[in-house]
Amino acid sequence: MSARAERAAVAAPEVRLPAREAVERALAELERRLGPSKVDTTEAARNGHAVDESEAVGRVPDAVVYAIDTNDVALTLTIAEKHGVPITPRAGGTGRTGGAVPVAGGIVLATNTMGKILEIDRANLVAVVQPGLVTADLHAAVEAEGLFYPPDPNSLKTCMIGGNVAENAGGPRAFKYGVTREYVLGLEACLMGGRVLRTGKRTIKGVTGYDVTALLVGSEGTLAVFTEATLRLVPKPPEVATVLALFDAVRAAADAVARIVAAGLVPRCIELMDGASLGAIRAQGVAVDPRANAMLLIEVDGDGAAVMDDALERLGAALTEGGKTIDVVAAQDASQRARLWEARRQLSPATRKLAKYKLSEDIVVPRTRLVDLLVAVDRIGEETGVRHLTYGHAGDGNLHVNFLWNDEGERPAVDRAIEGLMRATIQLGGTLSGEHGIGVTKAAYLPLEQSPDLIALQQDLKRVFDPSGLLNPGKIFPTGHGSC
Amino acid sequence: MSARAERAAVAAPEVRLPAREAVERALAELERRLGPSKVDTTEAARNGHAVDESEAVGRVPDAVVYAIDTNDVALTLTIAEKHGVPITPRAGGTGRTGGAVPVAGGIVLATNTMGKILEIDRANLVAVVQPGLVTADLHAAVEAEGLFYPPDPNSLKTCMIGGNVAENAGGPRAFKYGVTREYVLGLEACLMGGRVLRTGKRTIKGVTGYDVTALLVGSEGTLAVFTEATLRLVPKPPEVATVLALFDAVRAAADAVARIVAAGLVPRCIELMDGASLGAIRAQGVAVDPRANAMLLIEVDGDGAAVMDDALERLGAALTEGGKTIDVVAAQDASQRARLWEARRQLSPATRKLAKYKLSEDIVVPRTRLVDLLVAVDRIGEETGVRHLTYGHAGDGNLHVNFLWNDEGERPAVDRAIEGLMRATIQLGGTLSGEHGIGVTKAAYLPLEQSPDLIALQQDLKRVFDPSGLLNPGKIFPTGHGSC
Repeated sequence: MSARAERAAVAAPEVRLPAREAVERALAELERRLGPSKVDTTEAARNGHAVDESEAVGRVPDAVVYAIDTNDVALTLTIAEKHGVPITPRAGGTGRTGGAVPVAGGIVLATNTMGKILEIDRANLVAVVQPGLVTADLHAAVEAEGLFYPPDPNSLKTCMIGGNVAENAGGPRAFKYGVTREYVLGLEACLMGGRVLRTGKRTIKGVTGYDVTALLVGSEGTLAVFTEATLRLVPKPPEVATVLALFDAVRAAADAVARIVAAGLVPRCIELMDGASLGAIRAQGVAVDPRANAMLLIEVDGDGAAVMDDALERLGAALTEGGKTIDVVAAQDASQRARLWEARRQLSPATRKLAKYKLSEDIVVPRTRLVDLLVAVDRIGEETGVRHLTYGHAGDGNLHVNFLWNDEGERPAVDRAIEGLMRATIQLGGTLSGEHGIGVTKAAYLPLEQSPDLIALQQDLKRVFDPSGLLNPGKIFPTGHGSC
Repeated sequence: MSARAERAAVAAPEVRLPAREAVERALAELERRLGPSKVDTTEAARNGHAVDESEAVGRVPDAVVYAIDTNDVALTLTIAEKHGVPITPRAGGTGRTGGAVPVAGGIVLATNTMGKILEIDRANLVAVVQPGLVTADLHAAVEAEGLFYPPDPNSLKTCMIGGNVAENAGGPRAFKYGVTREYVLGLEACLMGGRVLRTGKRTIKGVTGYDVTALLVGSEGTLAVFTEATLRLVPKPPEVATVLALFDAVRAAADAVARIVAAGLVPRCIELMDGASLGAIRAQGVAVDPRANAMLLIEVDGDGAAVMDDALERLGAALTEGGKTIDVVAAQDASQRARLWEARRQLSPATRKLAKYKLSEDIVVPRTRLVDLLVAVDRIGEETGVRHLTYGHAGDGNLHVNFLWNDEGERPAVDRAIEGLMRATIQLGGTLSGEHGIGVTKAAYLPLEQSPDLIALQQDLKRVFDPSGLLNPGKIFPTGHGSC
């Protein structure tokens, strides 16, 4: 874990560890039945698969299995179940809450080796893909056919569809288009013990039986391992425009968001950056008016020039009404658009440079409570003395609140700040996670949002899929709460 | 059941019936704890709640409980569980597959007595409503605020939100807007034994824990009884236009649908009616060009006149390309629009007048397989000699295939026709039900689409919510397949 020494750590939950002999028997059987080339027990592979892009601390796994087809996945789950060895599924490993971190050691089941596009069906607006497909590669392939797959998590150049489905990934375009859940029509999913299920359908409509597909989307790798996803596509919007609006205060920006929604406008993205975020953007060399303490980055799409002109005119009116807007600028061409978005996408890594340690939260509040949330963040910052920076998907009320610090001694204050943020979020009618999931890093806070009955019910559902609790243990449910 | 004597009957499944003494004890306790006014054991009430709008045959229930709040529902489920008495939840009773039919007798738990709109939150685009709210009343209330709730099942003037959520109702506008599932953010749900859960959130984004809300939507009253739904709204589209296109053959109409989709157009509805359906419309006194053997009824919505002009122009081009279109007519005003839609909405009752008996199916195929499905329906009609008529939501590939007959002796041929339709649907990559659910009438066909493993998994999920199998027994899962 030395490569991550500078990152904040969220301790691994208490989980049952597998017996040494059980692991050895499992690895021997895996090597025999999958072939030794697919079972990697080198230190490099094991260390490389002990972490993801979150602060969660795992245990170095005993082996990494590289699956190349459904049969490999099913066989690995059969053997793991037989020998009682924990399995942690992994696609891109870009998760932000520890979903792919093997907290109980055992086997990491890698599906990044299954990255094919199996089918793009233009006439039915459907794609069938494997879990290891990089999201940006899916975007490129379907856009080349005049189609569009809207979910666009920030990590789209490295994250993969399997992880997107497991975490129900979002992204800026969710304001208009919704999140991954809205685009998963069906799944091929392998269960512990090796059962292979095909859930869902190839059509938008379909109400045959329970919506098992929807239960699997966002289940954070704790119920099944996906080997194929049937995805809904939409026609690619022919026209896109990006508008940037600068404000002297974040409250003025939040008010502008409310006016946009009240006007009945549905931009595909409404991104908010606070003053500290603008500082991080300026530090990347992007010139931003020095008077600005908040920015909205708005993207509108539609059919044809007339539609766009009308939408942009109404958007401009909503932005400038109230007279607190410093500037509204429309991107003049595709390269200017790309630069604006690149700055936005680099915010997360740029933030990491501002301090030695960073913890990034991902809460959601009803849109009208954005200002209340921002006020609460300021108050929490003052009370705890922890530096903070906020940006995110204002249209959805989904904000990434980052806490930054340099001294390990500040950590207890940071933990108080995070708990304060979680409590404020729930009090404002919000939810703990908009797109990153609960994983390891937020599990302790789950009871703030959900009742003991609801948590117990979910643990019962988990047991239906994974009675021995070997699939991605230590995730979602707080330890000591009867978690698997 | 005499009022339904003229309707086709689908026999009740084999289910365990409650002991007489258990029912009596339960009713006594219900009367004592809820008050006698909420427990109706009159013959009129019991007979009136023995059927719904489907062909499913139930057993006359022992009592009807009228709930007026969450506490009533929870208490009824507590008492039913305690005494081992089956419960069938019911909202509008307009279901088409027997979801509200009490096949094991026992208690019908009526929620049509809980019909309030608790909140319309314009700024956050959210409504909170009770299960007994009539769907059209929700439409009217939110549209008065400039908002829009898209799901529009044909029965919208009588069906209720509780049933819409339980069945995951669709409707014509699903092509653009999706089905009920896309609009349910959260639920208050009562479980057998009386636990009350709040699932989901008030925001579009939210990935905290498993998506229990999505599992409950479309669960056909077999997992929980809903007492409150938090619904997502969208801005009301300011402009709507309806276009009618006539074709000499249903194949030409299906080809036009393909061209519309290929052009990247997203009308909110694309409704198809075949020649026999046009006959039923003509029989209602609506003049339809006698050369026409198929019709598309298309509705486009959007922001502002420029958008609409552009969309209608492109739509007209897609409709007339190929030269097989008899006529394309745009509705000239709101009353003409209303008349066209009224004719469409009356198709289901009008079809009922064409023969003594009718069974209506609700299959979905991928859009490009529409013609193949229509060919298969013709073939099945020829092979079995059963008269048929097809209309439905062509944009979604969701067709209502109606079989019509006059003589009870034809019933075995009708059953063969239905099974043939189900097999053809699955072979074309489709699904057994687009919006009506499985209920009683389609349960026997479930294994045609789903594997034994997937069916067994769903039955295990059912047991998590309802271990004693008392909540809406005999639905979804085929009898003799270990059903609850």
